[in-house]
Amino acid sequence: MSRTHAEQAELALLLEVAGTPKPGNVDRHRDHEDLRFEHFLAGSVGAGEGLRAAAAGEPVGEAFETAVAGMAEQEGGNTQFGCLLLLVPLVRAAGAGELTRDGVREVCEATTVADAAGFYRAFEHVDVALADPPAELDELDARRGSDAVPALERNGVTLYDVMVHSESDGNAAEWTNGFPRAFREADRILDGDGPVLDRASRAFLRLLAAEEDGFVRQQSGPKAAREATRRAQACLDGEEDPERVAEEFVERGINPGTTADITCASLYVALERGLSV
Amino acid sequence: MSRTHAEQAELALLLEVAGTPKPGNVDRHRDHEDLRFEHFLAGSVGAGEGLRAAAAGEPVGEAFETAVAGMAEQEGGNTQFGCLLLLVPLVRAAGAGELTRDGVREVCEATTVADAAGFYRAFEHVDVALADPPAELDELDARRGSDAVPALERNGVTLYDVMVHSESDGNAAEWTNGFPRAFREADRILDGDGPVLDRASRAFLRLLAAEEDGFVRQQSGPKAAREATRRAQACLDGEEDPERVAEEFVERGINPGTTADITCASLYVALERGLSV
Repeated sequence: MSRTHAEQAELALLLEVAGTPKPGNVDRHRDHEDLRFEHFLAGSVGAGEGLRAAAAGEPVGEAFETAVAGMAEQEGGNTQFGCLLLLVPLVRAAGAGELTRDGVREVCEATTVADAAGFYRAFEHVDVALADPPAELDELDARRGSDAVPALERNGVTLYDVMVHSESDGNAAEWTNGFPRAFREADRILDGDGPVLDRASRAFLRLLAAEEDGFVRQQSGPKAAREATRRAQACLDGEEDPERVAEEFVERGINPGTTADITCASLYVALERGLSV
Repeated sequence: MSRTHAEQAELALLLEVAGTPKPGNVDRHRDHEDLRFEHFLAGSVGAGEGLRAAAAGEPVGEAFETAVAGMAEQEGGNTQFGCLLLLVPLVRAAGAGELTRDGVREVCEATTVADAAGFYRAFEHVDVALADPPAELDELDARRGSDAVPALERNGVTLYDVMVHSESDGNAAEWTNGFPRAFREADRILDGDGPVLDRASRAFLRLLAAEEDGFVRQQSGPKAAREATRRAQACLDGEEDPERVAEEFVERGINPGTTADITCASLYVALERGLSV
């Protein structure tokens, strides 16, 4: 008996939030004021049905909407929308026996207009912080939820197309490129040693040091995004104490959420490739 | 969409281990040397299939064995054997629409010899610390695993009978009496306020203050069991700092595991009765 793909994904959600220190995010030792550790525990459990649907080969958009609806059954609000956006195609690829960059690329490229509609409907279950879209894409603003579906259908927009139009977002860039960062970081996690929660913390710091966080850029501005990346590198170089940076970033509301999403995807791939807990 | 009974039970497992401080046990802020927080996360996820079987009305012994086998798929060893022993009949009662003291009493009283065999087989999936049984019950020593099944069958011993013979154990006393402590504590959790992880900590302290922990008695002796109960009361009375007691008990290996099991069962009942997370 070993964990199913959906269970591995659920465990990845739990290990991601428990990994500590992850400067700026909720972790084993830190809460935000209204978004606490227990909300992420409940979100992980609630996502199970959608993750099982993805593993069983259900359409990506529908599985994602189900996962988000279940995740949202807690009082913290949006805990793991971005994680699930990455996990669902990965889990579907794993369910098809092809958890490789090519395998997940195929899953993403094969998405349909109906998948896009599922993605848009998912926004009705939870408030997701999003930047304003360009004016010409206004009728496809994801915040419209299912009101945008007629426009999706009229224009034949698939979920893959939606992600192509969102490539400035770090998660969308993973989606349209065969998850390069998640697979590379999974290898590093597997090559590492020590308790898995320490590895999760180091993965987060490496990912943040390598690329500015899109969510920080959107919420706190480009200067904060540059600072977060610079200081993650300083933590890796031993020049700063990540525990103190974590306290400071939580205090200042610098929250590298995109990096957390990619950390979660990396942990999932690592678990499927033999990371033991 | 709301959480299924199995999901509520999985969430109870997660909230139990995350609740802090819980003097002597693994919690959000403390690990034991070879038994760490992540092992409990993996154990919670792994128990899912058995919990779903219980909710669907599968036999208690079989559902329990499945839950334990899944829980044991991590490297920490026995994380939640006792929690699952309490959760499985509660979840089965909930699945039948009767999560009451009478409802769970009926589930327990209706167990069969086959259920006892499932319970014994569960011991083959994980090392569980057990006291020596009385000499006349040697052939029914649970550590024999499935080797004890012929003796169970010869003597017509049901799982309920096994629990009656183990009543000095706190979990067995719950099992044979309609879970008095779990239901009472669930009410107190529901009457409380504040974040759920703080409520979990207070529930643990109240349960430990009210009754000596069987696992501490067995592992560390009766004097330690008396001390743990006395000091839990001192924490509730504000005479001791539970964080410091937690550090000291982890250090000294005083591990009130039975109290943690009953805390988990109480959280489960509270969740089913409307505790929101």
